[in-house]
Amino acid sequence: MSSMFGNTVKISIFGQSHSQNIGVVIDGIPAGHKINLEEVNSFMRRRAPGNDSVSTKRKETDEPHILSGLVDGITCGAPLCAVFDNSNTQSSDYDSIRDVPRPAHSDYPAFVKHHGFNDVRGGGHFSGRLTAPLCFAGAVCIQLLREKNIYIGAHILEIAGVRDESFDSVNVNEKDFDRIHESPKPLLNQTVWSKMEEKVLLALKEQDSVGGIIECAVTGLPVGLGNPMFDGVENRISAAVFAVPAVKGIEFGNGFACTRLRGSQNNDEFYYDGDVVKTRTNNHGGILGGLTSGLPLVFRAAFKPTPSIAKEQNSVSLSKKVDTKLNIKGRHDPCVVLRAVPCIESAAAVALYDLLLGENNE
Amino acid sequence: MSSMFGNTVKISIFGQSHSQNIGVVIDGIPAGHKINLEEVNSFMRRRAPGNDSVSTKRKETDEPHILSGLVDGITCGAPLCAVFDNSNTQSSDYDSIRDVPRPAHSDYPAFVKHHGFNDVRGGGHFSGRLTAPLCFAGAVCIQLLREKNIYIGAHILEIAGVRDESFDSVNVNEKDFDRIHESPKPLLNQTVWSKMEEKVLLALKEQDSVGGIIECAVTGLPVGLGNPMFDGVENRISAAVFAVPAVKGIEFGNGFACTRLRGSQNNDEFYYDGDVVKTRTNNHGGILGGLTSGLPLVFRAAFKPTPSIAKEQNSVSLSKKVDTKLNIKGRHDPCVVLRAVPCIESAAAVALYDLLLGENNE
Amino acid sequence: MSSMFGNTVKISIFGQSHSQNIGVVIDGIPAGHKINLEEVNSFMRRRAPGNDSVSTKRKETDEPHILSGLVDGITCGAPLCAVFDNSNTQSSDYDSIRDVPRPAHSDYPAFVKHHGFNDVRGGGHFSGRLTAPLCFAGAVCIQLLREKNIYIGAHILEIAGVRDESFDSVNVNEKDFDRIHESPKPLLNQTVWSKMEEKVLLALKEQDSVGGIIECAVTGLPVGLGNPMFDGVENRISAAVFAVPAVKGIEFGNGFACTRLRGSQNNDEFYYDGDVVKTRTNNHGGILGGLTSGLPLVFRAAFKPTPSIAKEQNSVSLSKKVDTKLNIKGRHDPCVVLRAVPCIESAAAVALYDLLLGENNE
Amino acid sequence: MSSMFGNTVKISIFGQSHSQNIGVVIDGIPAGHKINLEEVNSFMRRRAPGNDSVSTKRKETDEPHILSGLVDGITCGAPLCAVFDNSNTQSSDYDSIRDVPRPAHSDYPAFVKHHGFNDVRGGGHFSGRLTAPLCFAGAVCIQLLREKNIYIGAHILEIAGVRDESFDSVNVNEKDFDRIHESPKPLLNQTVWSKMEEKVLLALKEQDSVGGIIECAVTGLPVGLGNPMFDGVENRISAAVFAVPAVKGIEFGNGFACTRLRGSQNNDEFYYDGDVVKTRTNNHGGILGGLTSGLPLVFRAAFKPTPSIAKEQNSVSLSKKVDTKLNIKGRHDPCVVLRAVPCIESAAAVALYDLLLGENNE
Repeated sequence: MSSMFGNTVKISIFGQSHSQNIGVVIDGIPAGHKINLEEVNSFMRRRAPGNDSVSTKRKETDEPHILSGLVDGITCGAPLCAVFDNSNTQSSDYDSIRDVPRPAHSDYPAFVKHHGFNDVRGGGHFSGRLTAPLCFAGAVCIQLLREKNIYIGAHILEIAGVRDESFDSVNVNEKDFDRIHESPKPLLNQTVWSKMEEKVLLALKEQDSVGGIIECAVTGLPVGLGNPMFDGVENRISAAVFAVPAVKGIEFGNGFACTRLRGSQNNDEFYYDGDVVKTRTNNHGGILGGLTSGLPLVFRAAFKPTPSIAKEQNSVSLSKKVDTKLNIKGRHDPCVVLRAVPCIESAAAVALYDLLLGENNE
Repeated sequence: MSSMFGNTVKISIFGQSHSQNIGVVIDGIPAGHKINLEEVNSFMRRRAPGNDSVSTKRKETDEPHILSGLVDGITCGAPLCAVFDNSNTQSSDYDSIRDVPRPAHSDYPAFVKHHGFNDVRGGGHFSGRLTAPLCFAGAVCIQLLREKNIYIGAHILEIAGVRDESFDSVNVNEKDFDRIHESPKPLLNQTVWSKMEEKVLLALKEQDSVGGIIECAVTGLPVGLGNPMFDGVENRISAAVFAVPAVKGIEFGNGFACTRLRGSQNNDEFYYDGDVVKTRTNNHGGILGGLTSGLPLVFRAAFKPTPSIAKEQNSVSLSKKVDTKLNIKGRHDPCVVLRAVPCIESAAAVALYDLLLGENNE
Repeated sequence: MSSMFGNTVKISIFGQSHSQNIGVVIDGIPAGHKINLEEVNSFMRRRAPGNDSVSTKRKETDEPHILSGLVDGITCGAPLCAVFDNSNTQSSDYDSIRDVPRPAHSDYPAFVKHHGFNDVRGGGHFSGRLTAPLCFAGAVCIQLLREKNIYIGAHILEIAGVRDESFDSVNVNEKDFDRIHESPKPLLNQTVWSKMEEKVLLALKEQDSVGGIIECAVTGLPVGLGNPMFDGVENRISAAVFAVPAVKGIEFGNGFACTRLRGSQNNDEFYYDGDVVKTRTNNHGGILGGLTSGLPLVFRAAFKPTPSIAKEQNSVSLSKKVDTKLNIKGRHDPCVVLRAVPCIESAAAVALYDLLLGENNE
Repeated sequence: MSSMFGNTVKISIFGQSHSQNIGVVIDGIPAGHKINLEEVNSFMRRRAPGNDSVSTKRKETDEPHILSGLVDGITCGAPLCAVFDNSNTQSSDYDSIRDVPRPAHSDYPAFVKHHGFNDVRGGGHFSGRLTAPLCFAGAVCIQLLREKNIYIGAHILEIAGVRDESFDSVNVNEKDFDRIHESPKPLLNQTVWSKMEEKVLLALKEQDSVGGIIECAVTGLPVGLGNPMFDGVENRISAAVFAVPAVKGIEFGNGFACTRLRGSQNNDEFYYDGDVVKTRTNNHGGILGGLTSGLPLVFRAAFKPTPSIAKEQNSVSLSKKVDTKLNIKGRHDPCVVLRAVPCIESAAAVALYDLLLGENNE
């Protein structure tokens, strides 16, 4: 088990869905940076449940308590630790999970890995609840990146096949991100929401769930950030993004679509825009050979439909070693994509800020 | 820069396309394991160029020289180092690259990152040539995994839109892998090759290139391997797979396709097959919550079309700061997908062997 | 900054002397182990101040609160986080430190490193207070090591030149450790305490402080634990022990004394004791070539005299850039050696448990 | 096993005493730095055997071959790999070692760790021969540090109890280092050599060996380099220095001697020397709270007497499980201290350069 990430700015995430607290330590943030906690809270609320028609009605206390690392709201060079309380948990809902693993959840392999000692309540350490500390780390890194004029934004590209517009991958900028974040829903085109909502509510009514795709962009990155081979931008962002539960795929630039293009179609040709080397298209998603190219970084993450559904499912009784039926109680998101938008921004922020501060200090 | 990978079994890859040697150190292989070097060489030949109609005619010496780590062909617990000679390099072909970066290559960001001191000959350390040491590490790890009855196989799923069959993700097994590796081309259905070849040769004739998709499966993994959050199976495999040049996307199980399914369609329900917990479908690709489920691990990697094409392209002169034309000389693969199959197997092998040996030693 | 340690069992320590909390995350503890929290508390009390004549009268709340990682007192495979409250802090005592760095403290270099933003209250993250979370991690690892019949014990070897007996480095065993821990003072020979106390109290009376040496032994380690070169037992224990403030030296086996011996005197010759290979002397301190030999591991750590003394000292005003006088107020240990005994045991435990679980999982 | 070191500039050492090659990969050196290979070779010769009366007569080819990482002698940002040939090895000398472990060597625990598969020839990967690649890495880092006006020098402080002068820990500077390196022997006072030599030659005549102490200093380090807790300067240097075989202790500043001083004697008081904060004494060895203070860094490493002696010793036969006699043949250093001087400089250089480049890139 390693719920730690990063080489220079290292985060350590702890907690289970129903443990006393969940939280995160961020080790390696330089001293002297003002952290705007109101903005952090505002960011956290985008992840918090209970706010809209398509997410769980479960209330979670998503206000971070800072235990260390700040003096008068300014980083002091010591590890920054923030915790969240776990409250309003209904542990009894989960009694059946101990014996009957939920399909598409970690219950069964976690049971085997931990010899039955894993915390099954709410999925334990495997719970989506653990994205709260990830988002705290992300909110902090987003502020620190912004000091360097690096901006991150994401939007719902698809829910249940209903598709938003894509980012203009060449011209996307921080104003687009502001507009998304200030809009009722994280979409470029707000009008697609009603169709998305319809799909989700229909699934919910049918005791089912839906999946989707989140698209994320980052602007203002310096040219040459990253590395060839194992510590490239794609490697590091992937390693962070797959920490978000339900992600099953990631693609950069035009991703899987580029596999059907010719080189002459896919290659983004260079030109000088004044003194700056640019490309007129951005199929490469701002990354060449593991390094940032100066064009906006663009990637997409695929989310599977929420595994917890109210519909009766087949499963097994691990104690009796027989097949059985499973009826999951409790309140679950029929679609996690909406709440996952800040999680994807956070994963990108954490990976990029770590890369940025880890560049050789010459 | 970090061309190192792994937490327990650590590999360090070095070399540039035209440096005296390229190679790899594998640190952490336990002592007492016989390494079959003939089999390693045979594996390396699957990656070597010059063997078929769709790859570069460039000859590369892909026979590893073992510098350390083996005594009488058996691992001795010391780091295993293997190097390859670089020969038959035509450095003069690359003179123009120093000033005029090739579109879709790392040339431009590498120039910026390294202040012009990067080795431009053949792409330097960013070259696909560096997959040779990766394949050496992969070939070794594949042998070591096989001792534990873990098998890895990959095939070309698509080239230029021409599609092979997919793995039967529930029943795929080592016999399928043997059949693929013994076939003329790494395909499940050999008859699709003629259409793939046709597409590649047409692109080549038109001074162009094509991309494709590789599908990889791993069988025999124990249940519960991996971790939640940052060191999950998906995170680690992604971090390794994106080291292979030209990869722009990765997906596990049904990947992006699952985003349009309902939970009830996508959830793989558990049942007992004798004493063993299984699922009848494998949309989850053998991974739940970052842990292996016991079903075959299945993933796919998207490859962009080879960026080096003979067709004239637009680029810039970095010294003159003006736009210019670029004509790439030299011999390049019109399609890297064929030769990349063992690279993807290697990336998976390296990531999984590292995870396996890194499980808490209790 | 990296207040993280470990490769397989990783700890992350956070907090400052006067932040709301200090604490530790332990990532990688296997599931299914009962943690005896009463025993942890009892271990923590050995480090706590206010218990004797030679330590500070400052009261610290050294009772850990478990935030995550345990279910019904048993490890669940998720990161174990424990925090301590900071209370009874007298921040006003430290006002002068902000401008006038205390000699032999980190104040001045920390000021430069963190551009004046470091938390100066009580030494911030550099405070000896941070050994409380280290001791928590140590207490847990000590319990987990004991399950494998590995025992750790330390005693005061010297305070202000007054010397206890040394361990019998060949025959030392867990009974010796029990005896030390159950004694009024952590000494092999209790009678030397009065002389030590006398030295400390005299120094205190003279507004001064004293240093000393702690000797630590570990028994029951398997043969062959560790590595050559950088991850040897000495390397890893040193890396952990120097985290304890005031340590300025470490030596293994007979350490610096061996530099004046002949090889024939210093070499510990092997013999068979029944089926077991042993040595009759243990100049090597249980470590050969970075690996455990099966003999007890023995090392000693040198502690400088407490830098905080009541006596007036020369220092500088960083704001005025002039020399000035410093009078340190507050309550400080005239000798930290007594309270540091469990810290040294903890450092050793954390390093060894990490090495042990990180051995290749074959 | 991990023969890797470093967080930002990472080195990977490979090879065994009698493998085809030994070598090192240095990953993370920034591009654009000229490496003076003649100077490297000259540095290597200080470690090479066969040069004086007190070292082994064995000849080793200590000229590095650069496999990658340099273009026209300038770092190109890719990993720098250098290898050394192993020649003039007399493997037959070591036949007895396979069964009869040498006292004070790693033979026995390595046999257990590696289940008898370790390379016993010349000590395999545990051999002092592996300090050659360490010295290569050190020579490179020393050059790179010098570009930043950071200088490293070491001298023999003691051999067999015969003592050189100590560094003037406040005023030591690069001229002292130059003088040492240009002198016949690495001593501050050349006149002590004859007494040291006498002791060594007497031991050799008596088929025995001697130990000693090396003192190392580093000047020009910026204030505030390092970290509290686990990545402090002491932790990192220790972790590197214990990679040098035969080191059994390390101390910083006045080290073990400070344990008998009062705080008022040991505390180095600050004063302003012009604009610069300094101390008039340097008991702290240039490190406070894990951070550099601006004063010269000073540490000492204790070397045990060479374990390989010609005198007959008691040992065991591992195959027959009986006690037996051991007569070590071959050519061994009666004192490794002389040749270890550049090794200690190298360990310090590698640790400090890694720390320096790993400082947050703000």
